[in-house]
Amino acid sequence: MKIVVVGASGTLGKALVEHFGQENELVQVAKSRGEYRLDITDGNSIKALFERVGKVDAIVSVTGNLHFGALEEMTAQNFSLGLNDKLLGQVNLALIGQHYLNKGGSITLTSGIVSEEPIIGGCNATTVNAAIEGFVRAAAIELNNGMRINAVSPSVVTESLDVYGPFFPGYESVSAKRVAMAFQRSLEGPLSGQTFKVW
Amino acid sequence: MKIVVVGASGTLGKALVEHFGQENELVQVAKSRGEYRLDITDGNSIKALFERVGKVDAIVSVTGNLHFGALEEMTAQNFSLGLNDKLLGQVNLALIGQHYLNKGGSITLTSGIVSEEPIIGGCNATTVNAAIEGFVRAAAIELNNGMRINAVSPSVVTESLDVYGPFFPGYESVSAKRVAMAFQRSLEGPLSGQTFKVW
Repeated sequence: MKIVVVGASGTLGKALVEHFGQENELVQVAKSRGEYRLDITDGNSIKALFERVGKVDAIVSVTGNLHFGALEEMTAQNFSLGLNDKLLGQVNLALIGQHYLNKGGSITLTSGIVSEEPIIGGCNATTVNAAIEGFVRAAAIELNNGMRINAVSPSVVTESLDVYGPFFPGYESVSAKRVAMAFQRSLEGPLSGQTFKVW
Repeated sequence: MKIVVVGASGTLGKALVEHFGQENELVQVAKSRGEYRLDITDGNSIKALFERVGKVDAIVSVTGNLHFGALEEMTAQNFSLGLNDKLLGQVNLALIGQHYLNKGGSITLTSGIVSEEPIIGGCNATTVNAAIEGFVRAAAIELNNGMRINAVSPSVVTESLDVYGPFFPGYESVSAKRVAMAFQRSLEGPLSGQTFKVW
């Protein structure tokens, strides 16, 4: 398969590259390093990427920024960060990417455990992650030519515990390798419109 | 109770006014008619409303526009309609409104059945409604002083069947009165972070 990996330089992205790299042709996309660069909040940037890369068999995204902070102090501007970046960025990747997918191809986006289990300061994250899971649920019923779309929802990732661990007391972390396996379920399995939970 | 009803001139808004009007003081807010006008996409408009109205016991919202259209033709600009209007509009109503709520007060937003049961052309609606349900789930754990927040998710409303009926084949419609009762569960019951389904 020819797979576009958006967010390839991050913790999960590196795990995806390792997991899929042996048997597939990967297009490794990052924001500010490497051969393929992409600002996911810029539709023109997304279009330019696919025009260069051409048709693909799978698009996987492990990218997107969110706002973390107290609800009491949160503003619409704070909240828009996650809406425009992790949510609309990934949605637009799918909206544009659908036109560059080969028959039977798949799109897999990333949500996260806080979609269902909120954490303090994570109101924007819960909203955005729930929205992504809603998006794939709805988009799945309109894709044709055997194209599919899913989300992967990881718990806090073991390799990121030093940064995010304090926000997830008592949560079992999951290895980036396990998250990559959930992406494989999405790419190679038959399901669509699903959220594969890694927790 | 002093209740702010945002969207008071719509089908559901009128039912809320009738349901709550006898025993409560209502502030009826609409986009383009009546004494209290509000553009929910404009934070300054929301702030001005609450500065004028002062402290309240409940905020209920039955408002918000969405984009309906085929996934294949959908653009980020189309998609932003629902994100900026029904989603961020209601979120900002809550973010600002929390500072004008009396102790024990509540906020109740509107999502909709397509959050869980997508319809063709409804990708933006499913995303936005799922996001709203996520938002109340997360916001609930940070509100203090006994303040609560919930969502109400109606099926297609009987009074709106002439417009929306064709999009909901086989769905049982629900009366606006029944939807108003779900709002009452939110305002007068003990639960928070919930989505009350009317379907």
